[in-house]
Amino acid sequence: MSLTDYFKTIPDIAYEGPESDNPFAYKYYNPAEKILGKSMEAWLRYAVCYWHTFRGTGADPFGGATLCRPWEDGTDSVDMAVKRADVVFDFINKLGLKFYCFHDRDVAPEGDTVTQTNKNLWTVAKRFKKNQKATGIDLLWGTANMFSHPRFAQGASTTPNADVYAYCANSVKEMLDVTLELGGQNYVFWGGREGYMSLLNTDIGRELDHLAKFLHMAVDYAKKIGFKGQFLIEPKPCEPTKHQYDFDAQTVIGFLRGAKLHKHFKLNIETNHATLAGHEFVHELEVARVNGMLGSVDANRGDLMNGWDTDQFPNDVKECTHAMLSIIKNKGLGQGGLNFDAKVRRDSTDMEDFFHAHIGGIDVYARALRIAAKVIEDGKLDGMVTDRYSSWDAGVGKDVEKGKHDLVSLQKYILKKGTAAPNQSGKQELFENVFNSYF
Amino acid sequence: MSLTDYFKTIPDIAYEGPESDNPFAYKYYNPAEKILGKSMEAWLRYAVCYWHTFRGTGADPFGGATLCRPWEDGTDSVDMAVKRADVVFDFINKLGLKFYCFHDRDVAPEGDTVTQTNKNLWTVAKRFKKNQKATGIDLLWGTANMFSHPRFAQGASTTPNADVYAYCANSVKEMLDVTLELGGQNYVFWGGREGYMSLLNTDIGRELDHLAKFLHMAVDYAKKIGFKGQFLIEPKPCEPTKHQYDFDAQTVIGFLRGAKLHKHFKLNIETNHATLAGHEFVHELEVARVNGMLGSVDANRGDLMNGWDTDQFPNDVKECTHAMLSIIKNKGLGQGGLNFDAKVRRDSTDMEDFFHAHIGGIDVYARALRIAAKVIEDGKLDGMVTDRYSSWDAGVGKDVEKGKHDLVSLQKYILKKGTAAPNQSGKQELFENVFNSYF
Amino acid sequence: MSLTDYFKTIPDIAYEGPESDNPFAYKYYNPAEKILGKSMEAWLRYAVCYWHTFRGTGADPFGGATLCRPWEDGTDSVDMAVKRADVVFDFINKLGLKFYCFHDRDVAPEGDTVTQTNKNLWTVAKRFKKNQKATGIDLLWGTANMFSHPRFAQGASTTPNADVYAYCANSVKEMLDVTLELGGQNYVFWGGREGYMSLLNTDIGRELDHLAKFLHMAVDYAKKIGFKGQFLIEPKPCEPTKHQYDFDAQTVIGFLRGAKLHKHFKLNIETNHATLAGHEFVHELEVARVNGMLGSVDANRGDLMNGWDTDQFPNDVKECTHAMLSIIKNKGLGQGGLNFDAKVRRDSTDMEDFFHAHIGGIDVYARALRIAAKVIEDGKLDGMVTDRYSSWDAGVGKDVEKGKHDLVSLQKYILKKGTAAPNQSGKQELFENVFNSYF
Amino acid sequence: MSLTDYFKTIPDIAYEGPESDNPFAYKYYNPAEKILGKSMEAWLRYAVCYWHTFRGTGADPFGGATLCRPWEDGTDSVDMAVKRADVVFDFINKLGLKFYCFHDRDVAPEGDTVTQTNKNLWTVAKRFKKNQKATGIDLLWGTANMFSHPRFAQGASTTPNADVYAYCANSVKEMLDVTLELGGQNYVFWGGREGYMSLLNTDIGRELDHLAKFLHMAVDYAKKIGFKGQFLIEPKPCEPTKHQYDFDAQTVIGFLRGAKLHKHFKLNIETNHATLAGHEFVHELEVARVNGMLGSVDANRGDLMNGWDTDQFPNDVKECTHAMLSIIKNKGLGQGGLNFDAKVRRDSTDMEDFFHAHIGGIDVYARALRIAAKVIEDGKLDGMVTDRYSSWDAGVGKDVEKGKHDLVSLQKYILKKGTAAPNQSGKQELFENVFNSYF
Repeated sequence: MSLTDYFKTIPDIAYEGPESDNPFAYKYYNPAEKILGKSMEAWLRYAVCYWHTFRGTGADPFGGATLCRPWEDGTDSVDMAVKRADVVFDFINKLGLKFYCFHDRDVAPEGDTVTQTNKNLWTVAKRFKKNQKATGIDLLWGTANMFSHPRFAQGASTTPNADVYAYCANSVKEMLDVTLELGGQNYVFWGGREGYMSLLNTDIGRELDHLAKFLHMAVDYAKKIGFKGQFLIEPKPCEPTKHQYDFDAQTVIGFLRGAKLHKHFKLNIETNHATLAGHEFVHELEVARVNGMLGSVDANRGDLMNGWDTDQFPNDVKECTHAMLSIIKNKGLGQGGLNFDAKVRRDSTDMEDFFHAHIGGIDVYARALRIAAKVIEDGKLDGMVTDRYSSWDAGVGKDVEKGKHDLVSLQKYILKKGTAAPNQSGKQELFENVFNSYF
Repeated sequence: MSLTDYFKTIPDIAYEGPESDNPFAYKYYNPAEKILGKSMEAWLRYAVCYWHTFRGTGADPFGGATLCRPWEDGTDSVDMAVKRADVVFDFINKLGLKFYCFHDRDVAPEGDTVTQTNKNLWTVAKRFKKNQKATGIDLLWGTANMFSHPRFAQGASTTPNADVYAYCANSVKEMLDVTLELGGQNYVFWGGREGYMSLLNTDIGRELDHLAKFLHMAVDYAKKIGFKGQFLIEPKPCEPTKHQYDFDAQTVIGFLRGAKLHKHFKLNIETNHATLAGHEFVHELEVARVNGMLGSVDANRGDLMNGWDTDQFPNDVKECTHAMLSIIKNKGLGQGGLNFDAKVRRDSTDMEDFFHAHIGGIDVYARALRIAAKVIEDGKLDGMVTDRYSSWDAGVGKDVEKGKHDLVSLQKYILKKGTAAPNQSGKQELFENVFNSYF
Repeated sequence: MSLTDYFKTIPDIAYEGPESDNPFAYKYYNPAEKILGKSMEAWLRYAVCYWHTFRGTGADPFGGATLCRPWEDGTDSVDMAVKRADVVFDFINKLGLKFYCFHDRDVAPEGDTVTQTNKNLWTVAKRFKKNQKATGIDLLWGTANMFSHPRFAQGASTTPNADVYAYCANSVKEMLDVTLELGGQNYVFWGGREGYMSLLNTDIGRELDHLAKFLHMAVDYAKKIGFKGQFLIEPKPCEPTKHQYDFDAQTVIGFLRGAKLHKHFKLNIETNHATLAGHEFVHELEVARVNGMLGSVDANRGDLMNGWDTDQFPNDVKECTHAMLSIIKNKGLGQGGLNFDAKVRRDSTDMEDFFHAHIGGIDVYARALRIAAKVIEDGKLDGMVTDRYSSWDAGVGKDVEKGKHDLVSLQKYILKKGTAAPNQSGKQELFENVFNSYF
Repeated sequence: MSLTDYFKTIPDIAYEGPESDNPFAYKYYNPAEKILGKSMEAWLRYAVCYWHTFRGTGADPFGGATLCRPWEDGTDSVDMAVKRADVVFDFINKLGLKFYCFHDRDVAPEGDTVTQTNKNLWTVAKRFKKNQKATGIDLLWGTANMFSHPRFAQGASTTPNADVYAYCANSVKEMLDVTLELGGQNYVFWGGREGYMSLLNTDIGRELDHLAKFLHMAVDYAKKIGFKGQFLIEPKPCEPTKHQYDFDAQTVIGFLRGAKLHKHFKLNIETNHATLAGHEFVHELEVARVNGMLGSVDANRGDLMNGWDTDQFPNDVKECTHAMLSIIKNKGLGQGGLNFDAKVRRDSTDMEDFFHAHIGGIDVYARALRIAAKVIEDGKLDGMVTDRYSSWDAGVGKDVEKGKHDLVSLQKYILKKGTAAPNQSGKQELFENVFNSYF
């Protein structure tokens, strides 16, 4: 089924196996295939993102738009928005995926008044609902763009301008309503302007209080309207602000705990944001996981030699396998998924390129899932880890874990023993060799 | 009064004012002078640190010891430790300071057994007590070195070896006892090995649970023995481990909240650790402050072009003024202070050099205090900040702060208004110019 | 004299001395005042840059334009370009400065054909010539923007598209002609797209050959038309490309030497580009200086906690004093100058803000010049450096410098001596304290 | 053949193929197997490095030695040095490798006088010669350690102390003699202390002149004694100094060109040094290659989340494949090779661990060679690159390459054409997908 003709020259992307050299086929992603008792599709829950893929122009801070799409008429009108909605669903369909996700401003333009802006959004949402029914494609999550318009330049819910705060309340309320209407499974906050450019002119205590209040209002409103989606916060250390409040997973978790919001939120971890914060991607996943807050993933990659958000499509199988190991330990992402918050390079100007980009990203994670499953089924690495901690499974270690010790009793134990048993080797290189053997 | 003769060629370091060009005098630090109603000494509470200043050798990963001190006999004996204790107090006296701080292993060598190790520590502690009485110098804080010995290579309270955990219990118990005995005002945890080298061989969930348990035991023991000092945690992102659990202020705060330990701890913020984590020093201070957890400061600096802990003496008046503004807003550091966790460069081989280093560091913060006080007394910058947030002092902003709004009522407000009032200029450059005018 | 009315509410910016608290006055910049035998104006040769200051919109990768200027009519027409030219000269006049600098595309829009594009440029250039005469303001340098238009997305003189290379030849030829016509004193190359996004699709050997050829053509053409201005290359490590060929000063010098171009070029060092490359600003200046290639400076600053080009106005007096020490050792910048390649923050939306920004930047360098002059006049630091190297002023050191030694004779010397004389202390902390005493 | 008994429990490491799960076997390295017409052994020329592998103790800046080897007697005597030489050759033999490399101070202790130091070196060198004959193992390169001893704290050939310079002359002369005697194929300079800690106390112009003179003396002496080995310089940006003069490949090339030394030197590129300088490893290889100066490789890896030299064993097949592609384009490394300048983690305390580490590193590069060969044999990626530059193979592009154009003629061409032909897509994502398909 096809809503438009724009991709008629592109074949439906299907699984052909690792030997295929067809650039328009999956070599690893076989949606229905069972891995560890669940279909690949169910593990991976890929989503196409509206912003980069359908609103990205290739502009960067030093140059203008390079990407011209044949369906665009050069306007940011509601008509164009509705037409574009059909193209998007066709694209997702071509890829054989099941989810999309968007910000309010990706899909519908602002109007002259807030009232008109809201109306524009609902016009497009209506088309989405129709297209969802027609295609079986679902909404992974919705969110409000509270960072692009100049009014947000100094913050959204952390703005010094109380009117802007009220404006944001309207945005989130409407997008919660829209997300509910479209059966969206999550609602995301990314605080692109929630931070500061200079501490000299910023009252961070006051701003953080406003942020906490705002999130509470969103939680309360969701409850009121019966929205059962998962709330997610997406950490990022900086850019566009000098310093964002949601620096990394631990920062967000700490903030949520302090604001008594932690039961209502999980985290949406992005690869490129992790590395900008000085953490490996898997570190952020693990931090979220061990705190019970791993919710969803922005599947992209950064360039570790560059200090900004390059938002490239994932292509490092090893990094993604690390990630999938964490996700499998988390028993999957629940209502969350893997959305491609990634953009083709600005000189990848062919329409085919955004197929190549998605196919590559999809296959890298699919391959990573296969490898991670093998690692887990083998049990070799897990066994080595268990051995490494075996002193905690008996004797004094076990007693500590059971809460039977204090400093005095532990001192007594070690004084009697005279000194500590020597450490076993950490064997990091062997761990690395074994891990490498799965690739 | 002098316990030894080693510094007889160095004059007592005294205040001579900004016009002095005597390298062995303070140009800004005048201990008794009142600034904002409190003596400089009371604001700054400088401490000499034992490790770098008296146990540092100038060795680095690519070369050996360069610093030879005339009082050292080349041994790590208890006798040498006792003798060194006298030199340390003489040094602090020369500088006219009132505090020192140390790790157990800085001051006393390990013995063949834990029992002997503890005994060695108490032998030196006895000398400290005597010297404290003789000089009026107090202990700012104590801590246990649980990172240098090979037994800690894989962690202290996050070790896979339960015996090492018990060993650490002894270390902390003894150092709490010693700190109590010496009237120490704080007790610090810096988890140099509490982190991981590789996630492949690490169970971070289990390790973090052990860490939480350990800190609870320390809190319980302190209560039991009547230790009233403040517990402090010192964040650092990495080094020596690839990734330390106590990455930065927010990470530690979040962890403490999750472990229900936050009422018992404050933070000890180090300049160089802040910047290694991707934060300005003042950011970390502000994060701690607005969370009510700013406790003490490791006054040093890093090299922003280098990716490791250079632990240089502070010398950027502007950075330190930012810091003092935060500290003054915090009404000072309470029981905490500014300790010089800083080392002379390895080619600064003269004995005079560590005087120059301390004099420089002391004067930079003293100057910063003077400037920060002027900024605050003038009120110009604070006034500009208050103006910037004025929309929160009345109308809808005030009502939001009072909890009178929800998403629906805010939407109603903004729909009625049609759009948000425009933002005032953030005026960052003017803020910067005004701030610069104080230097 | 005023060409337009746009700044009539802003006073002429004049020197009022350090005690002034007038935000629209210089506290340190007194153009005619003599410092080290030369006027401040002659040392500093400030230039206003056209692009950020008059074409910047406040847009960033996550949000749109925030800066609205009253003279803009919303078009990119030639008429608007001519009108804008008057405003620019008024602005420079208000500040009491003597130079401006621009890219072709800052000042005149592209036409439908190359011919039209060239014509547009000359139309505006004519107005510049008139305004220069009327105001006495001169052109510090000209350059061609070969990075913004999509045609340059894959490189300018390093493009895989030979037509684009020819296009660039036209751009540089025209801008050399224009620069000559306007009496411009330098011509700058900044290779924003001369680099790569991925090594997988790049033939760097071939691209570098094309670049060398291109620069030779420019040199040859300049000779042909009698252009006596200095050619400059501006290093930058990355952004917009993943990796620019002109990474840093040493890279450029090495490239120029390899291409036999080094006699024809000097460097234009930018503060923010230096730190992005992992160097202090003064390091880059010194590298250029000791290689006889320090030509001009982009006076801005970066944010060392952020990994992209923030292009902020300079405001660190210490960093700028380091810079001025290097520039004074270089006997000034010759035909070069200090241009403010810096932009107001996007939330600094008042027209006054770009005055504050320039006044701040001008005063910071003026203050730095004053301090650097004092450091040099005192001679204390230079004397300490000379002492440190004194072993090279006599004996074996002097002989080595004179070329009287080889490995064998030096071995003989040291074998006879048995071992090397011990090092003097490097006394870095004393150097730092002495340097700090000038602020 | 075995010189000692220390490794008798370890099997000879042999090729068993990818299916093997024997941790003491190669899965990819099959020395005699031909790849692209040359044996794997000839392509890879692996060398064991003496320093990390046989003199590393596991100490780091925050903790002491963790690695105890059974053959060590706790002394740094000449006897121990001779004994150790046998163990080293046994180790290399066990791995089936053909090369080793060392610094003077790795293999023989300093004596009380320079004369004695030289004598110690020759005593061990004699044993090396014997062991080389007995085992067929050769010396890849020699070098002098001019960074560890305190005398080098302020520089070696860039020292302010002329005596130290003379001392270094002796070191290099002796090591050139030793390298010649042992048939060493290269001689390496790594300037660990050739840089600065502070620009305030440093005369970089004078220091760089001394460095250039020193290298000329080495070149002259080599000629005199008939040493035919390749001179190599190993770039590193910083650590232990704040800033090393040999920052990266381009810096070194530029310096060598300026000093007229470029015909005598090639580069020894280290993975971890590349990334510390802000470059991908393959970037540094390519820069060296296209300048005709790729000589040898320090095969290790860094941790991109950490800002210091972690010197880990290579384990990223993709990074190494990129590297091998460059090396193959270079037609191999000539007299150079791949030495494992890498150390086991300090908690990898078993003797087996350094076998695991080397086996892992050897296999990663062997696998990379196999993949790179396949990429090259397929020709698909190279063909895509050639296509991308096709506009340079005919018409105006070809004429430019032939030197037939200048700015005027190119302008004429483009004016006539009216505008440039549009760019082809750069197709980076397709390139990445194709590259990924080889793994």
